[in-house]
Amino acid sequence: MAYIDLQNDLPGIRGPMAYRPETAKPLNALAEILLRDDNNTLTRGEREMIGAYVSYLNDCWFCQSVHGALAGYYMQCDISKVEAIKKDFLSAELSEKMKALLSIAASVQKSGKHVTATQIEHARSAGATDKEIHDAVLIAAAFCMFNRYVDGLGTWAPQDVRFYVNRAPTRAAEGYIDFDLYK
Amino acid sequence: MAYIDLQNDLPGIRGPMAYRPETAKPLNALAEILLRDDNNTLTRGEREMIGAYVSYLNDCWFCQSVHGALAGYYMQCDISKVEAIKKDFLSAELSEKMKALLSIAASVQKSGKHVTATQIEHARSAGATDKEIHDAVLIAAAFCMFNRYVDGLGTWAPQDVRFYVNRAPTRAAEGYIDFDLYK
Repeated sequence: MAYIDLQNDLPGIRGPMAYRPETAKPLNALAEILLRDDNNTLTRGEREMIGAYVSYLNDCWFCQSVHGALAGYYMQCDISKVEAIKKDFLSAELSEKMKALLSIAASVQKSGKHVTATQIEHARSAGATDKEIHDAVLIAAAFCMFNRYVDGLGTWAPQDVRFYVNRAPTRAAEGYIDFDLYK
Repeated sequence: MAYIDLQNDLPGIRGPMAYRPETAKPLNALAEILLRDDNNTLTRGEREMIGAYVSYLNDCWFCQSVHGALAGYYMQCDISKVEAIKKDFLSAELSEKMKALLSIAASVQKSGKHVTATQIEHARSAGATDKEIHDAVLIAAAFCMFNRYVDGLGTWAPQDVRFYVNRAPTRAAEGYIDFDLYK
């Protein structure tokens, strides 16, 4: 049960979002433009993977499960591959560019000051554009917010990973704006 | 100089916001509703103070200076009082409610999981409402994003605290939406 009376029993971020729709609106608008907008050279799968990885590092079960399942859905792979990337992305079958961006995301998770010029140079030499680096940093930073929002209010979350995998196609179709929090 | 070519020489968060206005829009909308909206029982000064304190904990000079100056402006106190609160809020002249909310914010800065039921109970017994606790958690979480965005991209910032103090009245009047990033 959450620390405050959310006046609903929705899981994860949905609880506080339904409780305070005025703040949910810009939070969802941010997720939509960062993770789902088509005007982006990072695929939706790559962007969801960055969010899932940072959520894993922050030990946020709800966010790593929702966005890990979405990453798997978009990348058309089994959830076990997503789990393997979260645990050891350097050994995973991923482009050098994605590995470099995940390395930057891991630094952002610790603090902005952990990002180094060498990491940026490495990402650039692996083919990352400035906009891709910008988005990777902001996605990682945004999940440091989402994760703290979810866990700082003590929300509950389904424990079975299949719950999230089964919902991923619907979540992918709905997007982050104007979806029904109660569905 | 920032890690990527922001195509402008604006300080702090203004640089990446001007570079990527599509993501700046929801970021500013979030700041406006959380920090400035009048439909809130926390004063603007209290909300800016939570943001400044978390930015101080994250060692983000730009954010702690901008929002510290705004907190001082709204609380009608000298910037030295804001500095004293950042360094040791328990010894500062603050309501028990604000001390309890700053304590929750300090936990959120570490990670959402650091917040305890005891801290929430303490805030409630000091008079905090559920909505105030919700907003304190989300403000703290949001600054964990803003700080990482600013420092993760290696942006520059003016070092003189008076720069921020002098600008605070204008920033307070403009708000976070539709202001001119270049002014």
